[in-house]
Amino acid sequence: MKRCINNPLITVKDVKPSRPDFRVEGVFNCGVCRYGDEILLICRVSESAGCTDQDVKIPVMDTDGSHPTMKIIDVVKEEHPEWNFTDSRSVIRNTPFVRKVVYLTSFSHLRLAHSKDGIHFTVDDAPMIQPMMQEESWGMEDPRVTQIGDTYYINYTAVSPQGPATALLSTKDFKEFQRLGVIFPPENKDVVIFPEKIGGKYYALNRPVSLEFGTPEIWISESPDLIHWGNHRHFCKASETGWENGRIGGGAVPFRTEKGWIELYHAADEANRYCIGALLLDAEHPEKILARTENPILQPEADYETSGFFGNTVFTCGCYRDGNNVTLYYGAADDKICRADITLDELYKALKVS
Amino acid sequence: MKRCINNPLITVKDVKPSRPDFRVEGVFNCGVCRYGDEILLICRVSESAGCTDQDVKIPVMDTDGSHPTMKIIDVVKEEHPEWNFTDSRSVIRNTPFVRKVVYLTSFSHLRLAHSKDGIHFTVDDAPMIQPMMQEESWGMEDPRVTQIGDTYYINYTAVSPQGPATALLSTKDFKEFQRLGVIFPPENKDVVIFPEKIGGKYYALNRPVSLEFGTPEIWISESPDLIHWGNHRHFCKASETGWENGRIGGGAVPFRTEKGWIELYHAADEANRYCIGALLLDAEHPEKILARTENPILQPEADYETSGFFGNTVFTCGCYRDGNNVTLYYGAADDKICRADITLDELYKALKVS
Repeated sequence: MKRCINNPLITVKDVKPSRPDFRVEGVFNCGVCRYGDEILLICRVSESAGCTDQDVKIPVMDTDGSHPTMKIIDVVKEEHPEWNFTDSRSVIRNTPFVRKVVYLTSFSHLRLAHSKDGIHFTVDDAPMIQPMMQEESWGMEDPRVTQIGDTYYINYTAVSPQGPATALLSTKDFKEFQRLGVIFPPENKDVVIFPEKIGGKYYALNRPVSLEFGTPEIWISESPDLIHWGNHRHFCKASETGWENGRIGGGAVPFRTEKGWIELYHAADEANRYCIGALLLDAEHPEKILARTENPILQPEADYETSGFFGNTVFTCGCYRDGNNVTLYYGAADDKICRADITLDELYKALKVS
Repeated sequence: MKRCINNPLITVKDVKPSRPDFRVEGVFNCGVCRYGDEILLICRVSESAGCTDQDVKIPVMDTDGSHPTMKIIDVVKEEHPEWNFTDSRSVIRNTPFVRKVVYLTSFSHLRLAHSKDGIHFTVDDAPMIQPMMQEESWGMEDPRVTQIGDTYYINYTAVSPQGPATALLSTKDFKEFQRLGVIFPPENKDVVIFPEKIGGKYYALNRPVSLEFGTPEIWISESPDLIHWGNHRHFCKASETGWENGRIGGGAVPFRTEKGWIELYHAADEANRYCIGALLLDAEHPEKILARTENPILQPEADYETSGFFGNTVFTCGCYRDGNNVTLYYGAADDKICRADITLDELYKALKVS
């Protein structure tokens, strides 16, 4: 893929904190759509409430009362000698054979960024929407946008002490939102919804996880209405190749081509290095994989991808096709938004289809 | 609860193996319904293919071809010094912070048992149904039966290398079955479907699991058609009391009373001791918990409950109400089927409702 020379396009410097006592740690994995004459990115913005050598301040949304309110939990490290504070993303309690997340160190919300040219973006001053449900009391992450008619469906990872689930919103104007609830219970994220009915049904890729079994891999599910999902089937195994021997999951919302659906997905190896690959799916039977890239089409190489909040990570939630060109937006090192482009011909070549 | 003096009602001696080279290891967690003038139990029958000090023979269903065929994998212990063979239920690979199931030592299928009096049962000679899908290639476990009109919906744990999921069958005669696919992707089991629409929607309790977060607890979900599920909400936390500090999950299919829905659920402590408790749910809003038993209504005490394939376990998948009496069938120590009875008045007393 061809990286944009303006990369990174959006960094933490471009984002106002949602509260004066918060610090923006990252602006990254973003859903993508065209709205009017603009390219819209729905960005994941992660913020922390501060930490010192002695303590960590954990932001959580308290949804017990009638109005959700942000609450800061002060964790004094000395009081928890059995907890591990070395992971930049979470506070961990390790017991034999179990690695449990006690808290996330940052809280993510969704924020809009606007552009006319797809390169220069203006980030809104305030969050697009705030968590309301108990099931998202630890934040809203990794949005994907699927446009169907004049409605934009935004699915995102709803995080809570019960684990990461996937919830759905819809909007026509990015001002008023309808909350459609949790569509995949935990642990299930990396959900991408196809932008049209196929054979009378909606389809989504998703990534369920089992506590004690196997490798997290991609499943495909069906729905009559985008809200209720069933006929879940195991869809795509992680390949034996090194770059995806940790886990794989959906990435960008799939787009239709003359040769079938193209899905740009992510894979991580056992060292948590995140790359992007591509799948070609049958146009009428998206559960059939016609071709698959042997090597990543994008992997962390640039400085802004190898270094950051969580380094060695490129991760996409969305792209758009314009004729023969595909524009991909992606999170780099869990703290910046970047762009890379590829032609359909190059994609077909990487997929070895003619 | 009052244990039946004939307990255990069904043991491995009453069950013919499904193949001459298989050995029945357990007949336990069973769905319950009334059909014609009979009480039917849909039993989980687990079988092994034999093991010695040197090797373990692992039965799996090969679903790659046009006809699923049983395959026996011979695991020579000496060749896998890093695997652990001490758990009676599975072969385990322990790596730091991860306990992974490599294989299950037994393979479960569903088998019918018939009775006129609810005490003396005759077990069919052959399985009721065999695994067909890749998602159940490691077996079918823990069935629950929900009767709606003249149709019986049987949900069960579909086990595969991707983890335990929940799938659905329907039948009107227990001879022909319609396969309705996976309704909850992994890891999700202990699903119980309410036997009628409430406010225009079907409801189910289920037990999703997160890899790194929290304690496995009960969620509630909605469906228009029993096949597609959404609006998943966290429903019931494990209490702080010792007997449920490991995890909790659905048990018997809920039944309606004058005071609301009663759900007999299971809880396990950190030592894997399984007990049964009760919840009272609002009749019109089943997501509202009105009352909950403080102590188990049944816990492993009898010899046949404390000793067996997996001891210290009482686990129910079904019961039926007859006037003021509730008859519960339950798996004891993962290898026998037992019965216990309780009156509604006693249940209300345990729930502290008048």
